[in-house]
Amino acid sequence: MYLEKINSPKDIKKLSIGELKELIVELRAHLLKRLSEKGGHIGPNLGSLEFTVALHYVFDSPKDKIVFDVSHQTYVHKMLTGRKDAFMIPEKYSSVTGYTSPKESEHDFFTIGHTSTSISLACGLAKARNLKGDNENIIAVIGDGSLSGGEAYEGLNNVFELDSNMIVVINDNNQSIAENHGGIYKNLFELRKTKGKAENNIFKAMGLNYIYVDEGNDIEELISAFKSVKNIGKPIVVHLSTNKGNGFKPAEINKEDFHFGAPFDIETGEFKRNKSGQKDEDYSSITLDFLINSVKNDKTVAVLTAGTPGDFELSKEVREKMGKQYIDVGIAEEHAVAMSSGLAKNGAKPVFCVCSSFIQRTYDQLSQDLCLNNNPALILVYYASVYRANDVTHLGIFDIPMISNIPNLVYLAPTNKEEHLKMMEWGLNQNEHPVAIRVPALDLISTGEEDKTDYSILNKYKVTKKGKDVAIIALGNFYKLGKEIADELGDITLINPRFITGLDEELLEELKENHKLVITLEDGAIDGGFGEKISRFFGTSDLKVKNYGIKKNFPDRVVAEKLLLENGISKDLIINDIKEILNK
Amino acid sequence: MYLEKINSPKDIKKLSIGELKELIVELRAHLLKRLSEKGGHIGPNLGSLEFTVALHYVFDSPKDKIVFDVSHQTYVHKMLTGRKDAFMIPEKYSSVTGYTSPKESEHDFFTIGHTSTSISLACGLAKARNLKGDNENIIAVIGDGSLSGGEAYEGLNNVFELDSNMIVVINDNNQSIAENHGGIYKNLFELRKTKGKAENNIFKAMGLNYIYVDEGNDIEELISAFKSVKNIGKPIVVHLSTNKGNGFKPAEINKEDFHFGAPFDIETGEFKRNKSGQKDEDYSSITLDFLINSVKNDKTVAVLTAGTPGDFELSKEVREKMGKQYIDVGIAEEHAVAMSSGLAKNGAKPVFCVCSSFIQRTYDQLSQDLCLNNNPALILVYYASVYRANDVTHLGIFDIPMISNIPNLVYLAPTNKEEHLKMMEWGLNQNEHPVAIRVPALDLISTGEEDKTDYSILNKYKVTKKGKDVAIIALGNFYKLGKEIADELGDITLINPRFITGLDEELLEELKENHKLVITLEDGAIDGGFGEKISRFFGTSDLKVKNYGIKKNFPDRVVAEKLLLENGISKDLIINDIKEILNK
Repeated sequence: MYLEKINSPKDIKKLSIGELKELIVELRAHLLKRLSEKGGHIGPNLGSLEFTVALHYVFDSPKDKIVFDVSHQTYVHKMLTGRKDAFMIPEKYSSVTGYTSPKESEHDFFTIGHTSTSISLACGLAKARNLKGDNENIIAVIGDGSLSGGEAYEGLNNVFELDSNMIVVINDNNQSIAENHGGIYKNLFELRKTKGKAENNIFKAMGLNYIYVDEGNDIEELISAFKSVKNIGKPIVVHLSTNKGNGFKPAEINKEDFHFGAPFDIETGEFKRNKSGQKDEDYSSITLDFLINSVKNDKTVAVLTAGTPGDFELSKEVREKMGKQYIDVGIAEEHAVAMSSGLAKNGAKPVFCVCSSFIQRTYDQLSQDLCLNNNPALILVYYASVYRANDVTHLGIFDIPMISNIPNLVYLAPTNKEEHLKMMEWGLNQNEHPVAIRVPALDLISTGEEDKTDYSILNKYKVTKKGKDVAIIALGNFYKLGKEIADELGDITLINPRFITGLDEELLEELKENHKLVITLEDGAIDGGFGEKISRFFGTSDLKVKNYGIKKNFPDRVVAEKLLLENGISKDLIINDIKEILNK
Repeated sequence: MYLEKINSPKDIKKLSIGELKELIVELRAHLLKRLSEKGGHIGPNLGSLEFTVALHYVFDSPKDKIVFDVSHQTYVHKMLTGRKDAFMIPEKYSSVTGYTSPKESEHDFFTIGHTSTSISLACGLAKARNLKGDNENIIAVIGDGSLSGGEAYEGLNNVFELDSNMIVVINDNNQSIAENHGGIYKNLFELRKTKGKAENNIFKAMGLNYIYVDEGNDIEELISAFKSVKNIGKPIVVHLSTNKGNGFKPAEINKEDFHFGAPFDIETGEFKRNKSGQKDEDYSSITLDFLINSVKNDKTVAVLTAGTPGDFELSKEVREKMGKQYIDVGIAEEHAVAMSSGLAKNGAKPVFCVCSSFIQRTYDQLSQDLCLNNNPALILVYYASVYRANDVTHLGIFDIPMISNIPNLVYLAPTNKEEHLKMMEWGLNQNEHPVAIRVPALDLISTGEEDKTDYSILNKYKVTKKGKDVAIIALGNFYKLGKEIADELGDITLINPRFITGLDEELLEELKENHKLVITLEDGAIDGGFGEKISRFFGTSDLKVKNYGIKKNFPDRVVAEKLLLENGISKDLIINDIKEILNK
């Protein structure tokens, strides 16, 4: 047993090649055991095992600095840098996050979870080194589809300017989360096929030095390659051909499902929560059905994703059925939004499916390419809720402040199945506005009655219960909470605003007549959000307003109920607040 | 005179090559006359004259669709598409904008003003064409440094996937706004040098077909090249080597100053408002002095720009003096923010200078790369004011809602010279937070007294006048307006908040004692901005609040005073409002 003695990267430098190979066997066994029991990024961590060992064998972390793109493939890095217990002792499985974190270790330089950032971050480290006159190695590790993101390219384009040590390790496993898309992957394919000697080489074209490692899971080849570039005085790309899921057959074969997965049977590779099994209707499934039917019935409907079809249950089978009406642009959210604008401009009906956390990558494209041009694209924003994102790098609470303050956009928050269906239908077929829908994140609620609202009449809120003194404006996911409060308090008013992006000024005016207090509830960050606009509206009236939402912060490893309580959000807390304010 | 008879692109198709050459002479003369009298994008429009004529000669706009990147080079396009009066009749000079605008002409497909978007937008047009079964040509024209932006790359990467007609015209004039930066420009250089035959070709590497046109200002070569690709059934890059400022020697020689310039003497090429002449101290000059001194005194200070050094008066001379401490990343704001985070992490002191309109391109990098990691980079946000941006594509009013709702960031709004200097000094030398400063945009105000504030004590507002009943919280540029109101109203309170990103809750609590009304003033969009947070704070108190700012909208060709009046912002209007609210 070698692993037990590894407490820092220094400890692996003493091992022979044979011993390293033993260590790798041990690492893979522990990795697989933990992944099978807890789930996580399976394929990426299996595929990067050997080169992670080789990096730590050759370079001297933390003096030499390794920046992992997305950092979802750093389980082995963590095991080698003092955090192996989190992978070997089940009770400690949750003691580390799934990404790099400077709070955990001096070997982690950034908290990272979004793609395509490593080269730019590493450029900063390298330039600071140069300004200080230091001489450590700076290494960016990037792969798994991250090269399709514009930030990665902006980084690559600027590596050239450094004119000093910077090592970009391309972890090329011929796979993004799903299949790869885009011209660069054709070039990587050609480079692999020719063992690095293809006629055109995008990295060389960008002025970078380049070496190719054909056996990217062979520890000896890797060590030799890394040794050859250590302390190099110029930027260089080290292109590794690796095998995603390496060493675990089911993951090698089914690369997409094993990119990120639930616990699985280590013998058979079967997921314990079967991905393809029958399940109850939920917001994902009704959204998917809507998309499938829309594509089938209208050849101008195009469904776009930016490299994460699985997040929207767009399985390989569904994608194939959609044919050319399905567009995966790779991990390139900016392009997806701009392309949606172009599609709408030329008479097609684009629907861009995106996670709340990743729509953050497109502010300027939403503003300039889409909304300034007022083209009628439809955007479905998933995982927008405190209930649907856990890690600090993947929060779903900032979409309302980020996108709802952009002019021209209509951002809708459905509260039940029928509204969601009607909103999607309207958003897809109207011709007036860019429309986004905050796909509900909690359990499906169905009224059983068709929603007949004409959403082209903008910013009409729906009064679902008419009362007095207190009005609760309960947005989207939190309508349910608002209803619970209203049910308990009796004769008060309950409003389902449906429109995030505008005020129903007529209704709000009416409230002044026989209400003393307005409560706003939103499932997201409060700063810059929906409720503050209500506060602004009532600022000069006698009516009091209290906004509920999440305080400005980056909450980590969110447990929704806990976070909500910390922010004063629960039926009982809010009822207490209401009573207190009314009695003041 | 041929130009007089050109009312649509159809009219140039009848001309012979000889006549086209005459037309080009006429176009250049009118272009130069108008540019010399009105200023504008000089070099880009001179350099793209011939290929614009050739595009309209060969293709059939508007059926064939041309998308110009940034669209600052479309003066000739406008002259050929029914808008020549705006370039020939001085009284009509202002009848068209400086960018494409679908409101002006069916030959303009998008309102564009930011870089690197054309390929993605055109991909959308092309894909929609395919879905509808149409067959027009789709052409994206990109150059002038736009290729360094990530969105352009995401577009290029996806052109490959189209597998159908799409023509990407690279207007390669060997120049961005200032000099080019990045590896891709090395490749373009090599391609020019070898007449398109360099060993590595980034476009071919990305799977695209490619042709090279060495004489990109020669109408015959251009027509022949465009004819060869018209109706092509696959994506192709047409790489033109053009001459920025072509046909006007001063602009050919001094490409940077003539990229965008004031009126100039058409004989000598001298600018009428001399760029290098002595001028009074203003916020730009004191900021520049601060940067120059910081770089001189501390070798770890790095000044970053994203391709627009001129906006910050970082002249060639200054840049050369700063040497390796000056970093132009090309038009790549995302990289600039991420690199700043890396620089700060490794002990350097980055200062990223950026315009309000362009920081929009970096939401996710601000959030994930910088603020989540809480690295102490300094960002200077220029042109953030209704007074400092005119065209709808370059508004400076969205920076507060966009960046101030991101956790961990400290966004400061100085109101005078001394505060600005102290804030920059603190921001640069502290180690705790990412800091942004909204560089003041109006006339310089100096108190003559050193600001001794310790800005590390966050969110401490400054009461500059203590009174009762009414408190005016006047942010940044609008502090002056607040002071004018306070001076006139006598015994009221005036507050300079200085911190955009947090509330001084203690002070706000105190206001409740003897105030009835709080007024907030901010020089920017009101939705999601500073004032709404004050409204939220006082929502459940008896104090009334009124927020002043710009209503959510994309105002075009802004005349500041007019826009402010439309939003109820003037000393008199606000004083009236105050009296009315108090008397209710």
